[in-house]
Amino acid sequence: MKPKSAYTALSKHFRDVTALGQISGLLSWDQETKMPSGSALQRSEWMSALEKLCHAQRTDPRIADWLDAIDEDNLSSVEAANVRLISRQFERQSRVPSSLAAQIARVTSQAQGIWARARENDDFKVFQSALSEVLDLRRQEAAVLADGDNLYDALLENYEPGMKEPELAVMLSGLRKGLIDLRAKVADSGIEFPTLQGHFSREQQTLIARELATAFGYNWDRGRLDFSVHPFSSGSFNDVRITTRVSEKDPFNCFYSTIHEVGHATYEQGIDQSMGLTMLGRGVSMGVHESQSRILENQIGRSRAFTGFLFNRMRNVFGDFGIANADTFYRVVNKMDRGFIRTEADEIQYNLHVLLRFDLERQLIEGNLEVVDLEEAWNARFLSDFGYPVDKPSNGVLQDVHWSVGLFGYFPTYSLGNIYAGELYEKLLVDVPELHADLGLGDTRAALTWLRTNIHRHGSFYEPRDTIKRAVGHRPTSAPLLAYLKSKFGEIYKL
Amino acid sequence: MKPKSAYTALSKHFRDVTALGQISGLLSWDQETKMPSGSALQRSEWMSALEKLCHAQRTDPRIADWLDAIDEDNLSSVEAANVRLISRQFERQSRVPSSLAAQIARVTSQAQGIWARARENDDFKVFQSALSEVLDLRRQEAAVLADGDNLYDALLENYEPGMKEPELAVMLSGLRKGLIDLRAKVADSGIEFPTLQGHFSREQQTLIARELATAFGYNWDRGRLDFSVHPFSSGSFNDVRITTRVSEKDPFNCFYSTIHEVGHATYEQGIDQSMGLTMLGRGVSMGVHESQSRILENQIGRSRAFTGFLFNRMRNVFGDFGIANADTFYRVVNKMDRGFIRTEADEIQYNLHVLLRFDLERQLIEGNLEVVDLEEAWNARFLSDFGYPVDKPSNGVLQDVHWSVGLFGYFPTYSLGNIYAGELYEKLLVDVPELHADLGLGDTRAALTWLRTNIHRHGSFYEPRDTIKRAVGHRPTSAPLLAYLKSKFGEIYKL
Repeated sequence: MKPKSAYTALSKHFRDVTALGQISGLLSWDQETKMPSGSALQRSEWMSALEKLCHAQRTDPRIADWLDAIDEDNLSSVEAANVRLISRQFERQSRVPSSLAAQIARVTSQAQGIWARARENDDFKVFQSALSEVLDLRRQEAAVLADGDNLYDALLENYEPGMKEPELAVMLSGLRKGLIDLRAKVADSGIEFPTLQGHFSREQQTLIARELATAFGYNWDRGRLDFSVHPFSSGSFNDVRITTRVSEKDPFNCFYSTIHEVGHATYEQGIDQSMGLTMLGRGVSMGVHESQSRILENQIGRSRAFTGFLFNRMRNVFGDFGIANADTFYRVVNKMDRGFIRTEADEIQYNLHVLLRFDLERQLIEGNLEVVDLEEAWNARFLSDFGYPVDKPSNGVLQDVHWSVGLFGYFPTYSLGNIYAGELYEKLLVDVPELHADLGLGDTRAALTWLRTNIHRHGSFYEPRDTIKRAVGHRPTSAPLLAYLKSKFGEIYKL
Repeated sequence: MKPKSAYTALSKHFRDVTALGQISGLLSWDQETKMPSGSALQRSEWMSALEKLCHAQRTDPRIADWLDAIDEDNLSSVEAANVRLISRQFERQSRVPSSLAAQIARVTSQAQGIWARARENDDFKVFQSALSEVLDLRRQEAAVLADGDNLYDALLENYEPGMKEPELAVMLSGLRKGLIDLRAKVADSGIEFPTLQGHFSREQQTLIARELATAFGYNWDRGRLDFSVHPFSSGSFNDVRITTRVSEKDPFNCFYSTIHEVGHATYEQGIDQSMGLTMLGRGVSMGVHESQSRILENQIGRSRAFTGFLFNRMRNVFGDFGIANADTFYRVVNKMDRGFIRTEADEIQYNLHVLLRFDLERQLIEGNLEVVDLEEAWNARFLSDFGYPVDKPSNGVLQDVHWSVGLFGYFPTYSLGNIYAGELYEKLLVDVPELHADLGLGDTRAALTWLRTNIHRHGSFYEPRDTIKRAVGHRPTSAPLLAYLKSKFGEIYKL
């Protein structure tokens, strides 16, 4: 086979693979937003039929022949990047025996139900043996993937290609010390802020949520907003959909979920059109993805300038809701509460939640912690980092679905996203000096243009860390995030 | 291979094939109801990737081996029916060269766009050569399928398995004579009815449409209602969705579209659960499907008894809308207008529209009519059957999308559906004597139970004609439909 025709055949094959993956994404979207309740079983048959085919396509033996026949010197840089990603995925998938992959799929889908029951009954023991089984299978998988190297790295590679545990541990443990200190100071300040009063109707919240999505650059011609139990963004290229949820007592839940998902969605929508339906046409990693949702949600969306704009808009729509002025509103939006749940946490505590999980799951994967001791380890660490004890397992070790579905190595990408967002924000302030003047008017265009130019359009062309490095000019560290948090919360809590 | 394990392998394979086909159906539903406008091209890539896989699965050479190895004597009757349908589909698909199938797919997808432009410009010549090409390809396909037999039968087999042209022509031409006569009498009666006055809001129409869907047995746990340009029903088994549309001046459009689609949907929802994800788990033919939508829409939904119920409900929701009483309302719902468009036609003229298309498309397929002469032939036939001339091509030969996408042999199934509905209704009146008393209260339960028992639950287990024959006790003819129409319109128009 000629090298060029091998590339053509390979990339054509992977257009179909990509399309099938996107179809699977649409089925999941539909399942969470539109699917009639009675068709859950039928849907799982669909998903399994489609996944069987996708797997066959991704592991088609012709891929090895095409890869062998390709002469990389004759490829454009974009083609070469496409081949690099295809080859990496193919090699990893070929290493995992299909019997192990099937077993993982079966066991995790059962374990999720067991986890849900355990959480409902607030009893970790109910979940213990299912978690052990999932962990054991993931360790087996990590072992074949790592081939003698670090097990945790092999799993991390699924979500943050190129990132290694030692480097990650340095970044995250640096963060931890600073955050524990900052959290304690804020908690000791004794300062409290009022809460919102009133009823915030679904229609009015949806109106503002749609305005916010537009303001943060969401392209409605290539997406749509729906409602789901847990907000999410899904899809890529020209069909990137977001969801939100409405609590009629707490409009911030809806508004900041929407901004967060728009951050993910504008990233996908902003990828260069020429990369659509190639392996390059999606966000490059979980960490970089999360940086895009977090910078919009927190650094920009929870800034004094933007919350001033939001305060006026909310007064306009809802009338008086018990907050006297924009300064107080800013403090209310950012206040740190005594809580237990990661997904509800403020900017300080959020990362402490993640670091706890990161440290525990590394010990589990490396065999330094047994599942039987996990609850105790969780509770001890929580008390040590947060200063108060976990009151029940559903507020502790049972709160997240991730481990039940086998997501080990995923948690740290949340904090990595925050660290990247810290880096990007520092550079953005330099490159766009008028940023806060704009945000006071609800105008995010300059910030978005900067993100599109420096991050979005590249898709998966560069390695994740290089994507950030090229945007900020150096290797990312946690220092800018920590400095930002200290300054912001120092001012809010008069530390 | 053991016969039993061959059946197991075959039916397992076709569970996946069925699931993939249902996924494709969901993508089409999404495209018509939810898809962002900007992702049309991406969606067509998805559809083509999925269709490529489906085709490979449906023509997998192992199917021939499995079919060969099966010992039919060892199968249950349900298993044997499943094998019969699989074998028929496999044999037909294997006969069509994949190059011809690909060419048909490509040409019809282009021809649809050309047809739309021609209709917009009201110029048949724009469409002429594209239609010739589509027709030529379908004739080629029919020739390989017919293998020396009747070409039209080979196409008909796609939509109404087992039905042959001669039998169909007898049924339909008997209908034509009676309908031309009835149409002329109604037109000459000089009787006219008032039209609805007022504004019928989207919210209020949707409220009543949902009530109607519930009243006609739609299972909301296994379906949902959305809006689309053209109403349709899609999906099967436990996920059967319907759409409707709203014109704020004409609530009947929304209400009767909804009832029509609920007819299709309750059929799919009513199929025996054990047949789900087998070849038996869907409506057996287009004609039988249409009988289920038509009997609910017309014989039941446009009956004096049910319109009396609807009149009261509409008065309750909309107030006075210019119709004095339920008797007049019944006449307004059923009135025959001087029109050109099939989809807007009353019960009399609808079938005349279909018969016109049936006769013309048979001549096209058999080579007795050239595309260049089609417009003239259409106009002459319309004048002869309807008594007034076609005023422009978009009201004539260009009004339907069907031929542009290669649907030859499909039109007659609409009238066949009406004929079947006529037969079923005659039997229903005998078996459920309290029917009209129930319908006056908006209660369709006895009718639905009868349809579920006699039609729905069987899915594709029996041949289409046998499905009807078993329900009514004899071979279906057009006599009951004609008698029903003569009696109904004779009374309304005092003939």
